[in-house]
Amino acid sequence: MRVFIAGVDGYLGWSLAQYLAARGHDVAGADLFLRRGWVDEMASWSALPIASMPDRLVAFKRRYGRELRFHEGDLCQYDFVESIVRDFEPDAVVHLGECPSAPYSMVDASHAVFVQTNNIVSTFNLLFAMRDHRPDAHLLKLGTMGEYGTPNMDIPEGFFEIEYRGRRDRLPFPRQAGSWYHWSKVHGSNNVMFACRIYGLAATDVMQGVVFGTRFNGADEDERLLTRLDFDQCFGTAVNRYCCQAVIGHPLTLYGRGHQKRGFLPLRDSMQCLALAVENPPAPGEYRVFNQFEEVYDVTELALKVQKVGGEVGLDVEVCHFENPRMEPEEHYYRPDHKHLLELGYRPTHDVEAEMRIMLGDLTRHRDRIEARREVLIPDVRWSGRREKVHVLEKEEAAK
Amino acid sequence: MRVFIAGVDGYLGWSLAQYLAARGHDVAGADLFLRRGWVDEMASWSALPIASMPDRLVAFKRRYGRELRFHEGDLCQYDFVESIVRDFEPDAVVHLGECPSAPYSMVDASHAVFVQTNNIVSTFNLLFAMRDHRPDAHLLKLGTMGEYGTPNMDIPEGFFEIEYRGRRDRLPFPRQAGSWYHWSKVHGSNNVMFACRIYGLAATDVMQGVVFGTRFNGADEDERLLTRLDFDQCFGTAVNRYCCQAVIGHPLTLYGRGHQKRGFLPLRDSMQCLALAVENPPAPGEYRVFNQFEEVYDVTELALKVQKVGGEVGLDVEVCHFENPRMEPEEHYYRPDHKHLLELGYRPTHDVEAEMRIMLGDLTRHRDRIEARREVLIPDVRWSGRREKVHVLEKEEAAK
Repeated sequence: MRVFIAGVDGYLGWSLAQYLAARGHDVAGADLFLRRGWVDEMASWSALPIASMPDRLVAFKRRYGRELRFHEGDLCQYDFVESIVRDFEPDAVVHLGECPSAPYSMVDASHAVFVQTNNIVSTFNLLFAMRDHRPDAHLLKLGTMGEYGTPNMDIPEGFFEIEYRGRRDRLPFPRQAGSWYHWSKVHGSNNVMFACRIYGLAATDVMQGVVFGTRFNGADEDERLLTRLDFDQCFGTAVNRYCCQAVIGHPLTLYGRGHQKRGFLPLRDSMQCLALAVENPPAPGEYRVFNQFEEVYDVTELALKVQKVGGEVGLDVEVCHFENPRMEPEEHYYRPDHKHLLELGYRPTHDVEAEMRIMLGDLTRHRDRIEARREVLIPDVRWSGRREKVHVLEKEEAAK
Repeated sequence: MRVFIAGVDGYLGWSLAQYLAARGHDVAGADLFLRRGWVDEMASWSALPIASMPDRLVAFKRRYGRELRFHEGDLCQYDFVESIVRDFEPDAVVHLGECPSAPYSMVDASHAVFVQTNNIVSTFNLLFAMRDHRPDAHLLKLGTMGEYGTPNMDIPEGFFEIEYRGRRDRLPFPRQAGSWYHWSKVHGSNNVMFACRIYGLAATDVMQGVVFGTRFNGADEDERLLTRLDFDQCFGTAVNRYCCQAVIGHPLTLYGRGHQKRGFLPLRDSMQCLALAVENPPAPGEYRVFNQFEEVYDVTELALKVQKVGGEVGLDVEVCHFENPRMEPEEHYYRPDHKHLLELGYRPTHDVEAEMRIMLGDLTRHRDRIEARREVLIPDVRWSGRREKVHVLEKEEAAK
C-alpha cells in the first residue's frame, strides 16, 4: 500500500516509516522538524542520538531497499499538503504531525494557541486534500486516551448507547480532557468524525495510551535508524522519563500521590497496532475509534518496576513523590475498553519488565547525553500558569 | 457594571451595547469590522442601513449620555485583547466576536480553517487576558443550540447524570454539531469549561437558539442606532431571511422537507437573556450552560406564520421547498431543556406574530436594499463542498 506519514521525523513517525517499509509498503513522509525545535526550546535533546533527515534517508534506503519519499514543509499550509496527497495518491494517510505535549500547551497563551491551531489546521488540511484528491483513502488519526479523562464509569471505544429520560441513542462518549493539548485532540476527533459523515471519508481515530520504549523491532545495527527518545518535562512520557532518570541515578519523579492510572503500551506494540489499522481499513464513510493500549497501570507500579529491573542490572533507583504540576485526580476509577484491536489480531507484548530491561540497556549507552541535560528532569510548567520547579514531597516507601 | 463586548459592531453586539447602556452599565467594545467584509464577500449587505462606527458612536453618546469606549483591532492578537482587559477592568466580558455562520464555514478548506481558528483563538485570548488581569470577571460566551445536534433524546443544559454499566457520573452532554462553524463553538465550549476548572474563572456558556428581529427596544428614532439585519445565505438566519423575502415577493426558501425543529427567540429576548446573565454572574470557578431560546418551532411553521402575517399587511407570500444545501435530518425528535434563564427571571415574548409584523414594517421601508441584492436569496454553498444554487422542489401546499 502507499502510506503517507505526516510527521515522519518524530518518535512514532520515524518508527512507523520503517515498520511499514519492512512490511513491504511504499512510504512517503512530511515534516518541518518542529519537534526538534520544541525539545530544544525545553533546553533538552533526545536521549538517543538522532541523525539528520538526509542521513536518515540514506540509511533507510540501504536497509529497506526503497526510497522514503520525503517532503519538508508545513502541514498547516494547504498547498503543501494538497500537492503531496494529489501526487503520491496514498491509500492511507497517517497523521502523526500534531504537537503531542500536554505541558507544552500549558506554558502560556501563545503555546496554547499554537498547539490547538497547529493540530486543528494540519488535520483540516489532510481532510480536505483527501476529500478533493483521494476520497477513498483511509485517514489514520492519532488521538489519545487522555481525550476521555477519568470519568467514574467504564470508557467505551468512542461511542456508547445510553438511555436518558426513557429514550435511547448511540452517542459519542463525552470527553473530559486535561490540558489544552488533550483538548486539541478532542477537537480533532470531532472534526474527523464530522468529515466522515459529510464527505464520506473513512477514518480510524486511535485513542492511544502512553507509549514507551526505544525499539520498534529487534535490533538496529545502524544508529542512523534510531528513533528519538525524549526525557524533558514536555516531551518525555512517564516510562521513558523514568528509565532515563534511572540510568543517571536521578530519583524517578512521581507526580503527587502517584495513583494516576493510564493505559500504556510499548513502542513496538504501537507500531503493530498502527500497521494493523492501516492494513485493515474501515468502510467508506466509517469513523471508527480504537482505544490503543496494552494494559492499565498506576504510575507508581511502573516506577517500581523500573526500580526493580534497574536493581537487576546494577542501578540503584530511588522513587520520589513531587508536587504535581498538573491538575488531575490522583486516585480514580479507570476501566477503558480495548477490544477492537484485539479483534483485528493485535498480540500485546505482555512482558513490560523485559521491555524496560532493553530500554535501560539502550539508554545506559547514552547516559552522558542524559547527564548533560540533567536539569530538565524536574518540571516547572504548572497547570496554574505559574512557572516554578516542583518540590520533592517524600520518598516512595513501598519501594524499599 | 463594566462590560466589555468583543464583536460590538455585529447584529447582537451593537444591540447589546445599547441595551446594557440603557440599563446603566458602562460599556467598552472591540471590533475589526470583519462581519461587514464577510457579508460583502457574499455579495450582500444589511437590509437595514447601518452607520459607520464613528457615526454610531456619536449617536450612542447622544442617546445614552455616555461614551462607548471603542477599540478597533483583531481579537486574535493577544496584545490587543490583553491591553483592553487590563486597562478597562471589566466585570463582565461578552464574547460576540466569533464568525457565526455555518454555510460560510462550509465554503472550502480556507473558510473552515478561518472560522475555527478565528473562533478558538479569540476565545483563548479572552480567557488568558482574564486569567492574568481580571480573574474575578465573568465570561459570557456565545455558543449555539446547534452544538447539540438532534439526538434522539431530551437535551439538558450542558450536563447530564447518567448510568452506564452500573456506574453513575455527571458528564458533559455529547455534542453532535452540523457544520465546521457549529463544531468551532463546541471546541470553544470545551475550552471555556476547562479554563473554569483550572484557572477558576467564572463563565456562562449560552447555547442560543436562532435569533430573529429588527428591534431590541421600543423604537429607534435615530437610524444610526439601528443594528444590522442580514438576508444572504451565510449570515441571514431563518426568520430574518423569510421576512426579507416576503417584503420583495420572493418565495420563502424552506430547505428540504422543512421539518427541521430549532429553538427560536426574538432579538429583544436575546438581549434580555444576555443582560440577565451579565447581571447574575456565576460563582468563581463555575461553568454554567444556558439553553437560550423561547420555544421550539419547525421551520415550516415559522414560514407559514410569516405568510399569514404578510397577508394581513397586504403581502402575497409564497412558501417553497428547495433542495437542502445542508446535510441534516429533516424530521427528528427535539426537546431541549430551557429552565435556567426562566429561573433567573426571563420573561419570553410569546407573540411571535406581533414580532414578525414589526419586522415586516421595518423591512418594507428598506425593500429597495433587499431588491437590489435579490440574487443572494437562493443558496449555493452545499455541505458536500460543491458550489451550485439549489433548485426549487415544490410549493408548500399546506399554506394555501
